[in-house]
Amino acid sequence: MARKVYFISDGTAITAEVFGHAVLSQFPLEFEQTTIPFVETLDKAEEVKARINNCFITTGERPLLFHSIVNPEIRMVVKSTEALEYDFLNTFVAPLEEQLGIKAEPKTHRTHSINNASYDSRIDAIHFAMDNDDGITMKNLEEAEIILVGVSRCGKTPSSLYLSMQFGIKAANYPFIAEDMDNLRLPSELKKHKHKLFGLTIDPMRLREIRNQRLEGSTYASLRQCRMELKEVEAMYRKENIPYINTTYHSVEEIAAKILSMTGMQRKMF
Amino acid sequence: MARKVYFISDGTAITAEVFGHAVLSQFPLEFEQTTIPFVETLDKAEEVKARINNCFITTGERPLLFHSIVNPEIRMVVKSTEALEYDFLNTFVAPLEEQLGIKAEPKTHRTHSINNASYDSRIDAIHFAMDNDDGITMKNLEEAEIILVGVSRCGKTPSSLYLSMQFGIKAANYPFIAEDMDNLRLPSELKKHKHKLFGLTIDPMRLREIRNQRLEGSTYASLRQCRMELKEVEAMYRKENIPYINTTYHSVEEIAAKILSMTGMQRKMF
Repeated sequence: MARKVYFISDGTAITAEVFGHAVLSQFPLEFEQTTIPFVETLDKAEEVKARINNCFITTGERPLLFHSIVNPEIRMVVKSTEALEYDFLNTFVAPLEEQLGIKAEPKTHRTHSINNASYDSRIDAIHFAMDNDDGITMKNLEEAEIILVGVSRCGKTPSSLYLSMQFGIKAANYPFIAEDMDNLRLPSELKKHKHKLFGLTIDPMRLREIRNQRLEGSTYASLRQCRMELKEVEAMYRKENIPYINTTYHSVEEIAAKILSMTGMQRKMF
Repeated sequence: MARKVYFISDGTAITAEVFGHAVLSQFPLEFEQTTIPFVETLDKAEEVKARINNCFITTGERPLLFHSIVNPEIRMVVKSTEALEYDFLNTFVAPLEEQLGIKAEPKTHRTHSINNASYDSRIDAIHFAMDNDDGITMKNLEEAEIILVGVSRCGKTPSSLYLSMQFGIKAANYPFIAEDMDNLRLPSELKKHKHKLFGLTIDPMRLREIRNQRLEGSTYASLRQCRMELKEVEAMYRKENIPYINTTYHSVEEIAAKILSMTGMQRKMF
């Protein structure tokens, strides 16, 4: 039976999840995960405590509990369950208080809040990525910080969105389609912004798989077509000196982080 | 002078950033933050060490160092700098090994990897959110897990995208526009999926501010227009028993987490 895991927070619980997930991913085990966000009252904390203790009674095994709770009274209740608890904030905040010589001023909802100057520009970046997806328009490229290029379904859209959502970067993307391939060249609108171009590529077998999920048995999804498009596009990247990466074995997090790392672009923190 | 902070990892450094950011956000201080991802070789680790030690010499103040490093040799080098270091993984992995009675099998890039069954469905969800944004089409609503509704620029698009990106949920969204307001009612396509509808609203002053950034001085951005649209839409939410939240003081993380919490939808972990 998979070990039970709880992620608890008086906020969104996203930090508790990221924290717990990073730790658990080091273990070759299956876990059954439950997230309980917005535990903002003592009543709700007692409910959570009863639920966790009940899980222990039912399964006979102490569940794991990852929490990131700002309110000290609520934290006390959650810490008093039968679970094996991992206290994310307290473990690091206390030593940091000592080092900085300043008391923490815990406020719920500060981790993911709108109260920082960069929040609005992040939302702008998300709308920008939407409005400039898939070459819909070329008229905002001046404003783009990066322009991802590549064949259909090589990962441009999710990567642009992740760059905007996580890092606040204005990313446009432009597809090279089958009709371009006979005489593949950079459109003049892209040439003007060549220093912003970043190429994506992918293994033909993987591309076939992805395209087949979309249009099964089509020419578009055939291995022959995938191979041809990728060969043409990669040749162009090399000829035009466009930096590029292969997305086959990488998640959007990894692709986005690699693009920033290769281009030297700054992350804007959230 | 703002205290210098480094986020270091042999992977994307996204975990190190989330971890450090959550801890630092408890302190009422400014920090100058630098992220260095993909420290995958000992040479690169030595470079990072030299850079951090140099920062100490230049500023006379020990920088803060948050790290999440899987490779033990690289971690040793990074731990040996002059910085005040906060070791995210090791702090929690060692006690967990004991509790689980199993050794961790550290692998780089497992936290944000494509090697889990849910990764493809997450990418599907992102494409779904893109393809079903802003009422572009109503023909995929059957497939939607949730349909966000609301006036223009109340937060539907960023919230749908966040739901898909972070939680793997297929979210469509549909706007009520000025022309609908004289006789506002739910389109029949939405009525069919009423149990999936979730409303967003926002304070009129904030909506004016956001719309003014887009179309300054327009009727669309006038306080009168914003007030009227919001009043009509909120009346409809109440009449039709559509659950809704006010997005004015909430980030996309908070909006998305609240929607899941209110609807009882399951997060799909990443």
